[in-house]
Amino acid sequence: MRITQQHIREHNKEAEDKHTASFLPLVDQLDGKGVEVDPLVDQIASFQVAIPSWALGAGGTRFGRFPIGGEPGNLEEKITDVGLLHALNRSSGAISLHIPWDIPEDTAAIRALAEELDLVFDAVNSNTFQDQENQEHSYKFGSLSHTDTAVRKQAVEHNIEVIRYGATLGSKALTVWLADGSNFPGQQNFRKALRRTRESLEEIYAELPDDWQILIEYKPYEPNFYSMVIPDWGTSFLLAGKLGAKARTLVDLGHHLPNTNIEQIVATLSMEEKLGGFHFNDSKYGDDDLTTGAIQPYQLFLIFNELIEGTDDYADLENNIAWMIDASHNVKDPLEDLLQSVEAIKKAYAKALLVDRRGLEEAREANDPALAQSILQDAFQSDVRPLLREARIRSKAAADPLRLYRELGVRDQLIEERGSDTIATGL
Amino acid sequence: MRITQQHIREHNKEAEDKHTASFLPLVDQLDGKGVEVDPLVDQIASFQVAIPSWALGAGGTRFGRFPIGGEPGNLEEKITDVGLLHALNRSSGAISLHIPWDIPEDTAAIRALAEELDLVFDAVNSNTFQDQENQEHSYKFGSLSHTDTAVRKQAVEHNIEVIRYGATLGSKALTVWLADGSNFPGQQNFRKALRRTRESLEEIYAELPDDWQILIEYKPYEPNFYSMVIPDWGTSFLLAGKLGAKARTLVDLGHHLPNTNIEQIVATLSMEEKLGGFHFNDSKYGDDDLTTGAIQPYQLFLIFNELIEGTDDYADLENNIAWMIDASHNVKDPLEDLLQSVEAIKKAYAKALLVDRRGLEEAREANDPALAQSILQDAFQSDVRPLLREARIRSKAAADPLRLYRELGVRDQLIEERGSDTIATGL
Amino acid sequence: MRITQQHIREHNKEAEDKHTASFLPLVDQLDGKGVEVDPLVDQIASFQVAIPSWALGAGGTRFGRFPIGGEPGNLEEKITDVGLLHALNRSSGAISLHIPWDIPEDTAAIRALAEELDLVFDAVNSNTFQDQENQEHSYKFGSLSHTDTAVRKQAVEHNIEVIRYGATLGSKALTVWLADGSNFPGQQNFRKALRRTRESLEEIYAELPDDWQILIEYKPYEPNFYSMVIPDWGTSFLLAGKLGAKARTLVDLGHHLPNTNIEQIVATLSMEEKLGGFHFNDSKYGDDDLTTGAIQPYQLFLIFNELIEGTDDYADLENNIAWMIDASHNVKDPLEDLLQSVEAIKKAYAKALLVDRRGLEEAREANDPALAQSILQDAFQSDVRPLLREARIRSKAAADPLRLYRELGVRDQLIEERGSDTIATGL
Amino acid sequence: MRITQQHIREHNKEAEDKHTASFLPLVDQLDGKGVEVDPLVDQIASFQVAIPSWALGAGGTRFGRFPIGGEPGNLEEKITDVGLLHALNRSSGAISLHIPWDIPEDTAAIRALAEELDLVFDAVNSNTFQDQENQEHSYKFGSLSHTDTAVRKQAVEHNIEVIRYGATLGSKALTVWLADGSNFPGQQNFRKALRRTRESLEEIYAELPDDWQILIEYKPYEPNFYSMVIPDWGTSFLLAGKLGAKARTLVDLGHHLPNTNIEQIVATLSMEEKLGGFHFNDSKYGDDDLTTGAIQPYQLFLIFNELIEGTDDYADLENNIAWMIDASHNVKDPLEDLLQSVEAIKKAYAKALLVDRRGLEEAREANDPALAQSILQDAFQSDVRPLLREARIRSKAAADPLRLYRELGVRDQLIEERGSDTIATGL
Repeated sequence: MRITQQHIREHNKEAEDKHTASFLPLVDQLDGKGVEVDPLVDQIASFQVAIPSWALGAGGTRFGRFPIGGEPGNLEEKITDVGLLHALNRSSGAISLHIPWDIPEDTAAIRALAEELDLVFDAVNSNTFQDQENQEHSYKFGSLSHTDTAVRKQAVEHNIEVIRYGATLGSKALTVWLADGSNFPGQQNFRKALRRTRESLEEIYAELPDDWQILIEYKPYEPNFYSMVIPDWGTSFLLAGKLGAKARTLVDLGHHLPNTNIEQIVATLSMEEKLGGFHFNDSKYGDDDLTTGAIQPYQLFLIFNELIEGTDDYADLENNIAWMIDASHNVKDPLEDLLQSVEAIKKAYAKALLVDRRGLEEAREANDPALAQSILQDAFQSDVRPLLREARIRSKAAADPLRLYRELGVRDQLIEERGSDTIATGL
Repeated sequence: MRITQQHIREHNKEAEDKHTASFLPLVDQLDGKGVEVDPLVDQIASFQVAIPSWALGAGGTRFGRFPIGGEPGNLEEKITDVGLLHALNRSSGAISLHIPWDIPEDTAAIRALAEELDLVFDAVNSNTFQDQENQEHSYKFGSLSHTDTAVRKQAVEHNIEVIRYGATLGSKALTVWLADGSNFPGQQNFRKALRRTRESLEEIYAELPDDWQILIEYKPYEPNFYSMVIPDWGTSFLLAGKLGAKARTLVDLGHHLPNTNIEQIVATLSMEEKLGGFHFNDSKYGDDDLTTGAIQPYQLFLIFNELIEGTDDYADLENNIAWMIDASHNVKDPLEDLLQSVEAIKKAYAKALLVDRRGLEEAREANDPALAQSILQDAFQSDVRPLLREARIRSKAAADPLRLYRELGVRDQLIEERGSDTIATGL
Repeated sequence: MRITQQHIREHNKEAEDKHTASFLPLVDQLDGKGVEVDPLVDQIASFQVAIPSWALGAGGTRFGRFPIGGEPGNLEEKITDVGLLHALNRSSGAISLHIPWDIPEDTAAIRALAEELDLVFDAVNSNTFQDQENQEHSYKFGSLSHTDTAVRKQAVEHNIEVIRYGATLGSKALTVWLADGSNFPGQQNFRKALRRTRESLEEIYAELPDDWQILIEYKPYEPNFYSMVIPDWGTSFLLAGKLGAKARTLVDLGHHLPNTNIEQIVATLSMEEKLGGFHFNDSKYGDDDLTTGAIQPYQLFLIFNELIEGTDDYADLENNIAWMIDASHNVKDPLEDLLQSVEAIKKAYAKALLVDRRGLEEAREANDPALAQSILQDAFQSDVRPLLREARIRSKAAADPLRLYRELGVRDQLIEERGSDTIATGL
Repeated sequence: MRITQQHIREHNKEAEDKHTASFLPLVDQLDGKGVEVDPLVDQIASFQVAIPSWALGAGGTRFGRFPIGGEPGNLEEKITDVGLLHALNRSSGAISLHIPWDIPEDTAAIRALAEELDLVFDAVNSNTFQDQENQEHSYKFGSLSHTDTAVRKQAVEHNIEVIRYGATLGSKALTVWLADGSNFPGQQNFRKALRRTRESLEEIYAELPDDWQILIEYKPYEPNFYSMVIPDWGTSFLLAGKLGAKARTLVDLGHHLPNTNIEQIVATLSMEEKLGGFHFNDSKYGDDDLTTGAIQPYQLFLIFNELIEGTDDYADLENNIAWMIDASHNVKDPLEDLLQSVEAIKKAYAKALLVDRRGLEEAREANDPALAQSILQDAFQSDVRPLLREARIRSKAAADPLRLYRELGVRDQLIEERGSDTIATGL
């Protein structure tokens, strides 16, 4: 299944009149505010969000999983799926692999396929939260923090191996999500576990190529339910500081206690030059891994507002931060969910670009919270969908990616090609 | 200080061109979707939100209070302030009084003043969470639930007195917020406290005029920090069921535990014909009492989405539910805050009116969550500000109430009239 | 693997001196307070907690599962495991089955095995949150609340079938945990889903034998992450009220939003005669399903304090409420975890029995929170372990069940008998 | 009002028999486990908790305050009150002052009074969260983080003045609780506010005597409800790191988001030598400021378990960490509340001392969570009240401080001396 430029052109042609009717008045309004529309559309068009290889199949909960059909059964098919997304929105031009689920056996072929689909390889992810068949030591009681040197060694070596795989594909970052922790008070010596983790990370860091980063994720709970070795940004920051300049913190939006002000964490990390990347998703209760923007679109906007505050231009943003979706698709078609997530992220970005930053700074200096709120809300209330559509059309993406996906019957074709019983590797 | 039609006309004249430039394209777009704009604008214009008398001065926290200046020092001045708001937005045509802070001494004069400003009297509120000077029994350990019959009797009589005051002004509902509860495990016998509360409410209910409602608020904590006698909607619902058809539940948006799905509570209460009213505000942590829509505008929209789902038309909504803001203005000018809150509420209402309800119901029947989400987001992403502005202009309110408020220097004039040291009664 | 009275006798003989040295001084102290020790020990000995069949194997999270070895592979082995627990503590004399995981094929043999091990069959549980092989309709989008009549019918019939299985074994209650809900705003029509659920429950209720109860569980989230059809006690209470006297609410300790005052819910339900049963476990974040008493032992005590407040004696408690553990054993040996859970529950019960209820009631009437707290803490700070040990010794259970379990090498023997690769049915 | 040794002796004589009957069997049991009782009792006796001057009067919420009568009206009376507590429990031998509420006018007399009552002066606290009469600049929009240099300067100078007051009394630490933050998205530039705060703290740090520490408190919300400038331990840690070795973090138990694992934060800070002090209290929802140990006694024990893990002996603990209660007494007599809080803290400490640390470490190394839990619970379930009583009796404190307080009618005498209308300064 491939989506061709022919498909796109036909679809866009049909959408043209309606698009113009909404885009032109918006151009006028923005002009009236002194906003230059062309560079704005360009920035929106440039923004790319990486797709994680594990989000292409149906997810599940500990209570069960409902397969979707047509799921990619190997790395080639995963790359193909990301290619479909990118063809539709020209905003998903990167894929993030998970080792050992996605070990590239024929590296050259994999690279060629990605290149053909105009995809690059984003951060690679290690896995020490599950036991793989034939694995010598179990991670039941931890990996990088384990009490047993042999287990730690195995986990360190796995991470180094992941770097090697990533290097062959052109990745520039290793993301470490450490599931280590404890389920019961007393189970773990907090201090020793943190010290062992630091030492293990130092061994991995020593093997990191010069132009790579190591991104350290944090999470307050799950799969451990009393403590996690890296529960919060403070601990990740502490570790990144001890490791060195190539170590940074990765923020997964779902990895916070109730009511956390995430945008403030983003600002602090950014100011300290320790913000390394994002896992986008949305949630109402815990790490719910729902479609980005589905629950708290205003929070997403406020996060982008901080990101833009901290950078000069898009190139700066792009160079410094790894953007990735990390979601679980329990009831939606994963590809549809990803299209909706990318769209929501870009909406938040576009709205943040519309913020009158000079006015905002003046309101802040004047301690005028009513005005500061109005300025932010003004940007947020704007309907940026015509801008995103224009950016897509200029990039030869579909005016309405989700609609075209459905009109082309992509899922049905995937089921036809791959069957309805495939389960994406790793799920 | 009065705002005249002359002020409004001049302001609106200046805003006209810009408004037309944004309103007309929106009319076209809505037409294209088959939405009739005129009745939509009418419904938006009709929607009124009551202003509570206690929200007109600077609020405060237990750590301190920073006065704003020009605060209303008596009931007449409070009504005047609401009149200012209503002149600006024609959407705040009701005031909700708090007894004993707002006892009308000359009822006829008060009614005349309200009428002159085109205001009606919404639900009246009793206060049994503070001791007033010369009060015989203290509410330190509760009121309607108190262990001592004499205290309960005093609290019941106070509520009946509040009904009487309300009746003289034309109110049709009594709101009971019960601060009763306990700070420590063991302090209170949960069962007995609930039973005594029910009995006290029954005595009040017996005195309720036929065309009145009693609205029972719930709150999980504060000012008691271990338990509250009516902590959740379930308990309020249980009590309202025992009292009878004139008893209903009042939902204050800030009175929920972290992550509560408030819109679902609204749907359930509405379905059971027990939804009686709202206290609007916004919050990130607890009962933060921030400007409505300042933190979670999407949640506010989802609540309105449920409200509309449950009713046939605006008249139905208006007749059944008491709408009121309940906020605390710690750092903003209270009048500015209220203008922003009313605006946010009406935006949420307008967006909810835009939801393609037939399409939504079809998506639900088809178990198509991606489509259902798209339909809701479609309405939410729409820029409804031109609709609200049009509704205001048609109602002879200001195109931009907050801007006119500032241009007229209302706060400065109030300070000049009333001084900078007044403290609003009750604060 | 069986634990014999011979094993117990030898173990207890060895423990005798140390036990006496701690028990006798406690008897003196309790005597001094006017507490009769013998009936206290008898009540503690009588208290039985049911073991759910699904808690006998290693649990897991959506990120993985680490098998323990020797897990029971069929219903007979599950009953055998509960028999081991009951032989050790004489407090686990009931088992709660889950259909379809535990369909009894030879009912007579199953009943005989249970009788031999002195076990009865507690509430039976239906399962409409997973799809079973060869199942006609999928529960991906709900069961009792599903939009499609055929799916609802299938789910209703499954519940009726579960009642039938239970009846053959002597169960007297059906527990319904409904995983139905939605992951995204808009996905579900809250009102219709609740109405359909009520109608489905009414069909099940109609088939309930006269001496049965239907226990309706509630849960705020997971496996659905935006809304659950029965999210809170209020909704369960509302449904139970509509169904009739045989319908009651079941409280799972882990199914609450952060900071919920669970003991107050218990008091309210109990007062309304709608408290039907408990699922015990403990948690720090969400439905963590940890060992009961491992995180918040004081809360567990407060819950028992309410239970005792609401009943006259143990017979009353026992007759009215179904007690069951519901936990997931991710890192501990499940049988050890269950021994610890039962022990923690009985400690909380014993401490609650020690509360000076008359003194507490007087402190409450006198509004003396410092004294009320002291009275509760006095009971909680007491070391009741000698009482529990005495109760076990009198019941011919082991003085220290966990120690004997380890000394006898039970897990190793189970692994030898069953292998290390078995996975308990349903996991 | 003074409590004399004569009072204590008579009270203790009466308590003697009952005490011995519970203490001696405990000695035997501890002996049996190889625990030496005498040094244990000595450590418990040595442990002192500072009393904050502001906790001696009735607290209140934003909804009201119910005075208790006999509240201390000046610094001398506050010191007298702490002297009463210390005479009763010999565990409250320190007082923590709050400037400007407690400015010592006659330093020599104040020191003499404290010495007479055997009290020392613990950390001093600055106040930049309220405006004082005649204060030049308002803290409405912040203090150390304020946009205006003049306000920051005033706040810095105030802190330096507090150091000077503290130095004259023998204090060795300044506690900075910064209420600065924002109520609305957009109101504050997070980065600039944090940078300004750091610079202000550097100016204060420069004036810190060599043997002093500056303790930086953190709090996620209240009195600001969108963001606080120092919301979490990570931000406090970041600032303390930039300031230098004399800067440390202060942990207030109530200043955390729901479900935070506080004991892990304690362990991490302690390991990094940045744990400077504690504010003890308890809470169920937010910063409820309830009696320590009233809600979550097990959590308190787990915190002490970490503290002891990190130190060699009591001298080490005492030298490094400032212990203080910080509570608000809304319904209890403040002095009774403080007696209960100190008692609860010392119980937690005593239980933590009983933990079999070698056994615990072995269970951890063996990844045996069931055993580790049992070891902790073993200590927690122990009844340590006889140990605390013995420690008090040996220190010439009352066997039962709260009972003696009531028997002596202390509150009534205070009301007689001071009247029932006094309000403690600062409240």
